[in-house]
Amino acid sequence: MYRSINVGMLGAGNVGATFAEFLLSRAPEIREINGLDLRLTRIAVRDAGRKRPGLPAALLTEDVAAVTDAEDIDVVVEVMGGLEPARAYVLAALRAGKPVVTANKELIAKHGPELYAAADATGVDLFFETAAVASVPILRLLRESFLGEDITSVLGIVNGTSNYMLTRMSEEGLPYAEVLRQAQEAGYAEPDPTNDVSGADAASKLAILASLAFKRAIAVDDVEREGIEGLDREDFEIAERFGYVVKSVAKADVFGTTGTGEREIGVQVFPALVDRNHPLAHVRGTFNAVFLRGSAAGDQMFYGHGAGRLPSASALLGDLVTAADHVRRGTHRAVPLGSPATLRPTELLSHPHYLKLDVTDAPGVLSEVTGVLGRHGVSIRSITQEDRASKARVVFITHRAEEGAMKKAVEELRGLDSVLGIGGMLRIVEA
Amino acid sequence: MYRSINVGMLGAGNVGATFAEFLLSRAPEIREINGLDLRLTRIAVRDAGRKRPGLPAALLTEDVAAVTDAEDIDVVVEVMGGLEPARAYVLAALRAGKPVVTANKELIAKHGPELYAAADATGVDLFFETAAVASVPILRLLRESFLGEDITSVLGIVNGTSNYMLTRMSEEGLPYAEVLRQAQEAGYAEPDPTNDVSGADAASKLAILASLAFKRAIAVDDVEREGIEGLDREDFEIAERFGYVVKSVAKADVFGTTGTGEREIGVQVFPALVDRNHPLAHVRGTFNAVFLRGSAAGDQMFYGHGAGRLPSASALLGDLVTAADHVRRGTHRAVPLGSPATLRPTELLSHPHYLKLDVTDAPGVLSEVTGVLGRHGVSIRSITQEDRASKARVVFITHRAEEGAMKKAVEELRGLDSVLGIGGMLRIVEA
Repeated sequence: MYRSINVGMLGAGNVGATFAEFLLSRAPEIREINGLDLRLTRIAVRDAGRKRPGLPAALLTEDVAAVTDAEDIDVVVEVMGGLEPARAYVLAALRAGKPVVTANKELIAKHGPELYAAADATGVDLFFETAAVASVPILRLLRESFLGEDITSVLGIVNGTSNYMLTRMSEEGLPYAEVLRQAQEAGYAEPDPTNDVSGADAASKLAILASLAFKRAIAVDDVEREGIEGLDREDFEIAERFGYVVKSVAKADVFGTTGTGEREIGVQVFPALVDRNHPLAHVRGTFNAVFLRGSAAGDQMFYGHGAGRLPSASALLGDLVTAADHVRRGTHRAVPLGSPATLRPTELLSHPHYLKLDVTDAPGVLSEVTGVLGRHGVSIRSITQEDRASKARVVFITHRAEEGAMKKAVEELRGLDSVLGIGGMLRIVEA
Repeated sequence: MYRSINVGMLGAGNVGATFAEFLLSRAPEIREINGLDLRLTRIAVRDAGRKRPGLPAALLTEDVAAVTDAEDIDVVVEVMGGLEPARAYVLAALRAGKPVVTANKELIAKHGPELYAAADATGVDLFFETAAVASVPILRLLRESFLGEDITSVLGIVNGTSNYMLTRMSEEGLPYAEVLRQAQEAGYAEPDPTNDVSGADAASKLAILASLAFKRAIAVDDVEREGIEGLDREDFEIAERFGYVVKSVAKADVFGTTGTGEREIGVQVFPALVDRNHPLAHVRGTFNAVFLRGSAAGDQMFYGHGAGRLPSASALLGDLVTAADHVRRGTHRAVPLGSPATLRPTELLSHPHYLKLDVTDAPGVLSEVTGVLGRHGVSIRSITQEDRASKARVVFITHRAEEGAMKKAVEELRGLDSVLGIGGMLRIVEA
């Protein structure tokens, strides 16, 4: 069943231009293999007069409606970025009955449910594979493959910039400021790196992944997050010594049974010590990976480039081919999403922790410190003490303890005369 | 759009019974989320009189046509295994216009193209996700997501039994016979382990994966394979010393440019030294993983359980929900497969190699040996020599060399008086 599909684009920046060229170059093979003739028909840009090498000038227009509302456009690809006017344009296209493929992570993380509803109302597709782990079609799997699966946990390394930085800090012993500078020079980090190093970008991706995994609307603001800015070299050395790797992870879990009653969901982004035997520990450099735990399928991991123009273009084209195929067949696939998630309060989320203290080197101090931990229900898996001149450095690895209890214990420790300082406290991800 | 779908099954063995129970338990949630009412309607078995706990006796029948040809069956799930009569039954169902979901890896690896054609002729789905890496929906990605992607390489650990054995040999220093015995006791290996340890099972999976990745028909007999039976402890020690891990890998590559002209394909299963920095090196125990290289998406890896009743049931249900959804929407998805692959002769496939020789400890011997390698165009990356009483053990790591050249060099080395023995020769997978 042969069919030609007219594609309209919104935006032609970095990702957009690469996608347009990629589409033009791959179209003949897609026509041959899939019988879909994808025709790049129109590209709405702010300045149609600007020269854009590789893009035929005749395709450019400043008239957005000529993409979102035109009779002759079958599918819209949004690569302009930003919340507004992208949101308005995408809504316009969906309301005009046009399937939309978007690369706009912030838009989906912020306005997902509104957009899904708009797509469903006119019975068209809304695809956004690049919004999670650019090149890895994990959203498709969550939407289509794992429908019979009860997914209980999502654990990911979903920000390539911070993972690149942590990999170099870990493997080369470089300080934070130095790797940040190098990441900026290499183009992996923005001049203002906040979005990447603060966990904000990872929080957007986690909100999207967890929503689709658990089939509950989770907003980006629901995600509790901690950045990697505070990590120091000693954290990396201690991690290494105890068999861990320092990673910034995005973690979402479902609590409670699969029976009746609403289940609680915890969503967090934080730097953690990841056990060397966990497959995520070996995700290096700018690579991303998402680890899922399903009730029947068990553990799974999906690994690949999380950003970059070509991986993004590839994912956009995968989405576009599916949307085009659905147009040809007169079908679409809704985003299966139930009611908003019930969030579990952060204080009740529990992990093993690593905690580093400087204490006075005197009799009874260790007993005092462990007494505080014990009173807050924090049980200790291992203690390592190292004497340093007049003080001692103590490193605790705890068993699983609630965050609220840890926080209270640390506050109380801070008040002790014998505690000279509290260094790192990091959560631990076990294998 | 609510729709009830009647499901017929062929077979109710281990995987089948688990799948049936899983389907019955998940049906309410699938109905709620997807609006698909999956009704297990009939199960054809050889002996309908046998008690099967968990399966309602009323569903059992010995009449195969009551599943493959019955008016009231919408989708057929084949879990009987074996080539015949499974092939005949699946063909009958497809010809009767019924989508088929099968767990039968051998059937697809052997008769894939015939079955794909039959499915396409009546316009129905044929899904077989469990046939590659049971729980990981990688075939769906190859069929649907990577359509715009030029995949040039598939590298997998696709046999859980051999990976379990190699992991234990590697991490615990146990000998082959001992881990095989333990794997058999644990139920990971069959009483006759040939299918797993010889690479035959991996070859079936690779044929399926490579066919879908490269969109060329590749038969299981096209796959050149080597088992893990010949590995000895020293191979593991040397691997460890040089920064590698011993893994049985399934490897398929496309050669030549993407331009005109048919590209050659190489498909092999063999034990290899995998660089510790390669993500596949950290796939331990019974887990499987497939590493793909795409022209645009770059490197990707998909990791999960490759076998087991629950992971298989989960994958079957994922396929079934999609097939049912397609029935509801009156659509299907063909297997995009071009002409049969042009195979590249094995002698022309090239890898770095590790080669272990015992030589007499005399002046000029190393020069003689390296001279032989050099004459065959095998260039050496590293040499390690260790003296042992009257002989010396030499370990070579070569640069990338063609298999034909390596084989000829080894033959010539075997003929030298100074070469006392040739131990392991293994291919190397670099990071």
